[in-house]
Amino acid sequence: MEYETPLFFHVMGYAARAERDVIDMVSGNPDWEPPEALRDGLREYADLEPEQFQYPPSDGLYELREEIAERRGVDVDRVIITHGAGEANYLAMARALEREAGTEFVLTDPVYPYYPGKAAMLGATARFVPTADDGRLDPDAVRAAASEETAAIVANSPNNPTGAVYPEETVRELVEIAEEHDAILVSDEVYDHFDLSGAFASALQFDSDHCIVTNAFSKSMAITGFRVGYAVFPPELVENARSRHMLVNVAGSRPSQYAVLRALRETDPAYYEANRELLTERVETFTDALDAAGADYSRPEGSFYVMARFEGYPGTLENVERLIDEAGVAGMPGEAFGSSREDWLRFALVTPRVEEAAARLADYFE
Amino acid sequence: MEYETPLFFHVMGYAARAERDVIDMVSGNPDWEPPEALRDGLREYADLEPEQFQYPPSDGLYELREEIAERRGVDVDRVIITHGAGEANYLAMARALEREAGTEFVLTDPVYPYYPGKAAMLGATARFVPTADDGRLDPDAVRAAASEETAAIVANSPNNPTGAVYPEETVRELVEIAEEHDAILVSDEVYDHFDLSGAFASALQFDSDHCIVTNAFSKSMAITGFRVGYAVFPPELVENARSRHMLVNVAGSRPSQYAVLRALRETDPAYYEANRELLTERVETFTDALDAAGADYSRPEGSFYVMARFEGYPGTLENVERLIDEAGVAGMPGEAFGSSREDWLRFALVTPRVEEAAARLADYFE
Repeated sequence: MEYETPLFFHVMGYAARAERDVIDMVSGNPDWEPPEALRDGLREYADLEPEQFQYPPSDGLYELREEIAERRGVDVDRVIITHGAGEANYLAMARALEREAGTEFVLTDPVYPYYPGKAAMLGATARFVPTADDGRLDPDAVRAAASEETAAIVANSPNNPTGAVYPEETVRELVEIAEEHDAILVSDEVYDHFDLSGAFASALQFDSDHCIVTNAFSKSMAITGFRVGYAVFPPELVENARSRHMLVNVAGSRPSQYAVLRALRETDPAYYEANRELLTERVETFTDALDAAGADYSRPEGSFYVMARFEGYPGTLENVERLIDEAGVAGMPGEAFGSSREDWLRFALVTPRVEEAAARLADYFE
Repeated sequence: MEYETPLFFHVMGYAARAERDVIDMVSGNPDWEPPEALRDGLREYADLEPEQFQYPPSDGLYELREEIAERRGVDVDRVIITHGAGEANYLAMARALEREAGTEFVLTDPVYPYYPGKAAMLGATARFVPTADDGRLDPDAVRAAASEETAAIVANSPNNPTGAVYPEETVRELVEIAEEHDAILVSDEVYDHFDLSGAFASALQFDSDHCIVTNAFSKSMAITGFRVGYAVFPPELVENARSRHMLVNVAGSRPSQYAVLRALRETDPAYYEANRELLTERVETFTDALDAAGADYSRPEGSFYVMARFEGYPGTLENVERLIDEAGVAGMPGEAFGSSREDWLRFALVTPRVEEAAARLADYFE
């Protein structure tokens, strides 16, 4: 079996080796501070008794599962703490296939590249539904792509890479389509704290036994390196997912879970609000520059990303490298996200130098 | 697909609910102190810049991979940092199957229950080779079980649950058998720091392109909850394993890796030696009591475990529960480790109360 190594690593390596100053807008790593309570949690943990350094429960620290269950309004038995959203999506997609109710995943195009990567690793096929230029997903197109072969529909809102936030009606229809075809909606909501539109709707609100919701603290707490996420399963699907989690990873990382638990309990809503405001400002700055450069783009409603199209400058890897060398700005080639965005580039707004990057792009393309 | 939930959790739950005082000898969680440098590493990490809280390289912090590569005498490109030995074994077994040179795993009986669990999850079959009562593995029996259907032989030395340490000649033969059948030897060496015999031989010394060595800091640093392990792959097998690691877990937990790196660099050999001495004393105390109780056992050469057989008291789950209720000692039923040890019980020497447990067993069975 061959997997495609994500282009991320290639582009980040190229940017790092460049001889000039490059502003990194490649990865989705937040550049802002984690909650102070998270740091406190780590400091506290460092002094605990040896027994606190041993395996946590395989499905996660119980108090952390309880905090999540309470916030999400679900029974704690449905919650598995995972090694980030990455493992959560892996467990969810594997669990959908294990039902033996289809071998195909319906994905969007553009797509977060890990989804088709996981599909290939799991021996499944992927079927892509193109979204509109602004990232809107047409439920009728999903309905047309779904069949009895569908194991799962994998949706991500707020969306990476488009920045779209699917309205409640879209999410409701995705749930219904999954139910109609005895498939699972895997709803990856890892950017839920970065809904800039106010329109975000979690799939959990539809309380369907055909829906698995995945999430993580990686983005909301600016700790992509801690690897603490979770999945909420329907009651009848949770047991086998718990077994797979145990057989692959045994249990999660306890210092990470301990610190996240403390941060979850003690962090004020103002922390999250301030980060949303920061992103909103960056969106403003960056899209102003895109206007000045005459680029096509759609204003992100959520997540960290802006996709842009510059006339005569398709989003190939070659052009991304040229932009690094000639403009000092590193983005991601649109072709990494599927065939529909080969003309586009993706920029992640997770650098304090968004204004400088915007100015460089405006200069370069004007 | 159905997986068997390890009996560990059942037994630990039963012991926790018991109304009397129970000495827990069920799990393999060290009860001694982690290295002080590990705690220092966590404290230091808690104060780092936000960028240090983001994704480490997918295959692990480079400096940690370098430290491991240097100690093990291998090229750093062959080392992947994993989420504990659990993920290392999962990656190794999956990689062996992906070669499409067989769909069967040759395992020992008794067996560490996660191996057949992983085999089932990966859709493979398991074939068991019984070991001698003292845990010795006869390479000729492995040779007789191996065939062109063999994807991998999975061996664990020092062994859980038998305490056996395979001599160099056995390991050499296992490597040769893997080579003869175009299979992989997966050599799980997680207890290498708890070789009490001085006879431990790592499969790495044979430098075979048919061998994957797995290991972790979980036991050697008394941090089963940190989830930092590694696998050393042959050069031609590492790339796909790296991809699977990325597609399942994205990257490891950075605070854990950071703390382990510091501990690996700064911890004196005396730390590991003192823990071996502690275990040696516990073996002495415990086996003296087994003698007094008239039990069969074999003195462990390594790892944390003693398997014992009490006349008229087979190692069923029912008898384990009775021992909890009536003697106040919790062990593991031998049947959890395969059909060859249904008469036996396994006791983990990871409690400061080994002497008390030994006295309780001697009283109960005398």
